[in-house]
Amino acid sequence: MDQVNLKRLAQELNLSISTISRALRDSYEISAETKAKVTALARKLNYQPNPYASSLRKQQSKTIAVVIPEIANNFFALAINGIETIARQKGYHVLIYLTHEDFEKEVSISRHLINGRVDGILMSVSSQTNNTAHIEELIEKKIPVVFFDRACESINTAKISTDDYKISYQATEHLIRQGAKKIAYLSISQNLSIGKNRRQGYSDALNDYGLDANLIVNCSHNNDDNYKVIRHHLSSENRPDALFASIERLAITGYYVCNELELNIPTDVKIISFSNLETAPLLNPSLTCIVQPAFNIGKAAAEVLFKALEKPATELFSESLVIASQLIEGRSTAKG
Amino acid sequence: MDQVNLKRLAQELNLSISTISRALRDSYEISAETKAKVTALARKLNYQPNPYASSLRKQQSKTIAVVIPEIANNFFALAINGIETIARQKGYHVLIYLTHEDFEKEVSISRHLINGRVDGILMSVSSQTNNTAHIEELIEKKIPVVFFDRACESINTAKISTDDYKISYQATEHLIRQGAKKIAYLSISQNLSIGKNRRQGYSDALNDYGLDANLIVNCSHNNDDNYKVIRHHLSSENRPDALFASIERLAITGYYVCNELELNIPTDVKIISFSNLETAPLLNPSLTCIVQPAFNIGKAAAEVLFKALEKPATELFSESLVIASQLIEGRSTAKG
Repeated sequence: MDQVNLKRLAQELNLSISTISRALRDSYEISAETKAKVTALARKLNYQPNPYASSLRKQQSKTIAVVIPEIANNFFALAINGIETIARQKGYHVLIYLTHEDFEKEVSISRHLINGRVDGILMSVSSQTNNTAHIEELIEKKIPVVFFDRACESINTAKISTDDYKISYQATEHLIRQGAKKIAYLSISQNLSIGKNRRQGYSDALNDYGLDANLIVNCSHNNDDNYKVIRHHLSSENRPDALFASIERLAITGYYVCNELELNIPTDVKIISFSNLETAPLLNPSLTCIVQPAFNIGKAAAEVLFKALEKPATELFSESLVIASQLIEGRSTAKG
Repeated sequence: MDQVNLKRLAQELNLSISTISRALRDSYEISAETKAKVTALARKLNYQPNPYASSLRKQQSKTIAVVIPEIANNFFALAINGIETIARQKGYHVLIYLTHEDFEKEVSISRHLINGRVDGILMSVSSQTNNTAHIEELIEKKIPVVFFDRACESINTAKISTDDYKISYQATEHLIRQGAKKIAYLSISQNLSIGKNRRQGYSDALNDYGLDANLIVNCSHNNDDNYKVIRHHLSSENRPDALFASIERLAITGYYVCNELELNIPTDVKIISFSNLETAPLLNPSLTCIVQPAFNIGKAAAEVLFKALEKPATELFSESLVIASQLIEGRSTAKG
């Protein structure tokens, strides 16, 4: 293999390796004439820079990683689009890694990223994450990590999120005002702070309105199991008259269960959900949604990360941001 | 910075660098006792292997790239889940890159991947891709590329796709049998072979049933523009009585336009779409879908890629596969 490397180019042109290297990087120290000679020969010999060696030298991969739990979820699809708009402006590539809500996978991805494969990381942790050593290791290695949507509270870095507690309180209040008396909360994660905040908003609203019977339905990432547990509750004698879904997949399952049990939405069961579903207004009936500012959350998270990359002294924790969600009423929570 | 490297470990233990390196890679040539000593010291000194150097030596990144046009699309979300099941079995990481249907971005990603950052690539090309030099370069560099869903016909490698022509013919036939007389085809790409096959199936069915007025509506990746062009056609005096959407986003736009114009689906306008939308049966009315075997396409594409990684002599072209799609009737194409 006659590798075309800097040395070979230097020999052919009778120049030093450092001159060749600087010419190829378009350095101001090298004359235009020399640059032209070097790039012409490099092209002729089909010279390919070694990306690993060059990354080692520059300590820059010009890539950021986005670590998310799942892809079949409109929130993350929109957030990634927000992230990409910023990365594109900065000339960075975005690598997307999926944990599939699996803690071991998240740890394995973090290990994979620890040695400078990327310059920074945007992360939304898996719902199983209750140990944060793998993320602390990344930060110790000076790889900036910014959380979006799902954060680890104990880690001292920027968190870009929405007002989960407040909007969850409002959503519960909305159901109560529309006539709901027994509201089931479809919960997904025991560990995450956003899960806790959402549940707390629900509980506090029930309390404040004198409806103190919390009904937390613990769901999982298995659709069949979720179908069964929601069906069980909606089949019971003392069934809930409203479902508050903490993620959109659970609301969809709720619709399917109501169809099977021939329960009318909203007369028999009202449904509200955290959701960025594009088809929410087209469902039968249209779904009342808590719409998270997904695109803006992604965009803001990327902006904060690039701030840290450009000014490594940035105190990331103080860059945390809360962006408000919006309640959009559909017929799924109509009165009567 | 006192870097802990192989040399330092070798000095401390009075062993050769190659012994240290082999011990850390758990080589059979090194005794269990030596391995234990080496790994204990490595742990004590917090030794981190340099991933770039180690990748250079092993010529393996243990990662594959998936290059896709967009993420807010259920087909790709499901295909990626299929890919990940295989990658996980093989102990590989999956990097996802988005082209956002932008040819320049696709070229830039290909350049980024050309020097061994990944062992292989699964690709679904952008709808703008009409030049394939960037993909040919990857293949020349011995990086196996397997196409799924959207392929470049001229490139001699494996293509995993569905029976676009046949199912498109069937879908058009279905609309005709349900009473449609003037079927508009909502098209997205002039360049891609799958776009051509889908259009041809539509045209041939019209022809065979004696309805020879092809009505191709050229749509883009801009939702507002698509809304306007579909609205324009559905507002015209001689409006179509059926829409055949080549991608699900266009069917959703069709629903919104019908809502605005107060056209009843299916009485005034029937709608059918290529779609893997989870909410299709819950729409008002439920959407008749051509469901592509997205998960299985992703899985099969990954299997073929790993075959090529494990046996580099594999003739990729002959591994091409066509997996059948299914027509699932909803009320959006009901008679009358």
